[in-house]
Amino acid sequence: MILPKYFDDRAQLVDKELDLHLTPSTEEPKELYEAMRYSTFSGGKRLRPILLYATYEMLAKKRTEAQLKQASLAAAALEMVHTASLIHDDLPALDDSDERRGQESCHIKFTPAIAILAGDALLTKAFETIAKLDDKKKATLCIRVMCNAVSTRGMIGGQTVDLISSTKKNVPINVIRYVHMKKTGALLEAAVQLACVLDGADDNMFNTMTLYAQNIGLAYQIIDDILDDVGDFEMLGKEPYEDIRNNKFTYPSILGLDKARQTAEKLISDAHKLIKNMPNNQILVEFVKMIKDRLP
Amino acid sequence: MILPKYFDDRAQLVDKELDLHLTPSTEEPKELYEAMRYSTFSGGKRLRPILLYATYEMLAKKRTEAQLKQASLAAAALEMVHTASLIHDDLPALDDSDERRGQESCHIKFTPAIAILAGDALLTKAFETIAKLDDKKKATLCIRVMCNAVSTRGMIGGQTVDLISSTKKNVPINVIRYVHMKKTGALLEAAVQLACVLDGADDNMFNTMTLYAQNIGLAYQIIDDILDDVGDFEMLGKEPYEDIRNNKFTYPSILGLDKARQTAEKLISDAHKLIKNMPNNQILVEFVKMIKDRLP
Repeated sequence: MILPKYFDDRAQLVDKELDLHLTPSTEEPKELYEAMRYSTFSGGKRLRPILLYATYEMLAKKRTEAQLKQASLAAAALEMVHTASLIHDDLPALDDSDERRGQESCHIKFTPAIAILAGDALLTKAFETIAKLDDKKKATLCIRVMCNAVSTRGMIGGQTVDLISSTKKNVPINVIRYVHMKKTGALLEAAVQLACVLDGADDNMFNTMTLYAQNIGLAYQIIDDILDDVGDFEMLGKEPYEDIRNNKFTYPSILGLDKARQTAEKLISDAHKLIKNMPNNQILVEFVKMIKDRLP
Repeated sequence: MILPKYFDDRAQLVDKELDLHLTPSTEEPKELYEAMRYSTFSGGKRLRPILLYATYEMLAKKRTEAQLKQASLAAAALEMVHTASLIHDDLPALDDSDERRGQESCHIKFTPAIAILAGDALLTKAFETIAKLDDKKKATLCIRVMCNAVSTRGMIGGQTVDLISSTKKNVPINVIRYVHMKKTGALLEAAVQLACVLDGADDNMFNTMTLYAQNIGLAYQIIDDILDDVGDFEMLGKEPYEDIRNNKFTYPSILGLDKARQTAEKLISDAHKLIKNMPNNQILVEFVKMIKDRLP
């Protein structure tokens, strides 16, 4: 099992890069820098950066230090965008979550005002970081990929539709799919797409890897919701399908556990097929396996 | 007086460009697109875009349509960033303003959730727009300029310090200066800097125009506060210096009207000196004059 060591190594690499770009909170305005660092270094799994590195390293037999540095710039930018979205999503006006990764969310630890500004600042910092790529043509392509993933057509669009859906009594499965694909999936897609742009991969590879990311992203989300339901039943005695009465629409709450599980298995199998004949695909295969192993 | 016609022409040019990049609200998610357009097309004066065009056109005898199009991309991006900042600043957690330009602010017209997301989306769209510049090296330089202006070292930093200051009993004049320079000034600086980057101007011109923008930006803000104070006194019978008891720290509330006026006049005169010997400087000279004419 090569995955844990690879994950640790690459998580450390992106952490080092993040540390390099985020101003220490000894500088003024302290509170803002502290909030940005607090949310960035709060035990995130760095899944998106790791997927970026894994794709980038799959695309060549060996990467130089200089090439890995370029990947780190993109990976750090991607994690900044992800962190910014978590900070804003947790705000009272949106998901109103007081906790994130077992600690106070940004607006509780600081204030909602600081949380709004820290999110804006991290989003801006992400674009500043990616603009530092040596190859300026690739830099603007990466910015296009990132904007697409973050935009109204990506993560922000997904969050908006999720927000609107939560006030409804019925939500069709294709809308839930849309929300998952955009809210969770868009930045996973961006991870593999950024790697393709950095490598200079052709359109065919770009599209194949995008599909791979879409499949594992949607599977990941469905399995998360299955785990919630099974967990609720086993741990809390809460009935399955309780989600649906709480206006939380998920694959298992709408389709039932069996159908949700079948959908996830199909997605995982499709993801595996897309990459199984590629050279140097070990980590991407392990990625698929890791997601499959979470199925209860 | 060439200014009004030039202002109208260039405001129309940037409006056309904004319209091109902002998705119509017939698309889904409608509410999000509607909010983005609502705040963008709400009668803003387009000062920053106009300053960008004016600087860019000063730097050459004649600009082609193609060159003006490049300037429009940068100008639209700058106005998007400005709009995003106004949407977020108006939020209940920040300045809590229900009105903006005589109409309901974004979070009142829509919801705070949509306002947060619309701001994030506009900020993202700005970077997407600027990445479309033909010259990719200039594009990444422009992104650097824009990030600098928006970041913790720019507008967001200024907003943070303003926020922290508003809870204090005393704020030294250099902190007020910092807030003005960053919160108001940073995007005016960006306007002239973007023009310099697009033109390929040298460092000397870049620095001179930056100083020009700093001077008119700070003067503009001081005169705004003087007008508020004089206006309060004449119109409402409110005493001057009332601001200071409301924890609103300004040049006139701290230094008194006379000293504030002298400071503004000095800044205006300095701005004029910086550009008075440049060729094609008519609009930039008029810009200075326009600000001076606002002094009561």
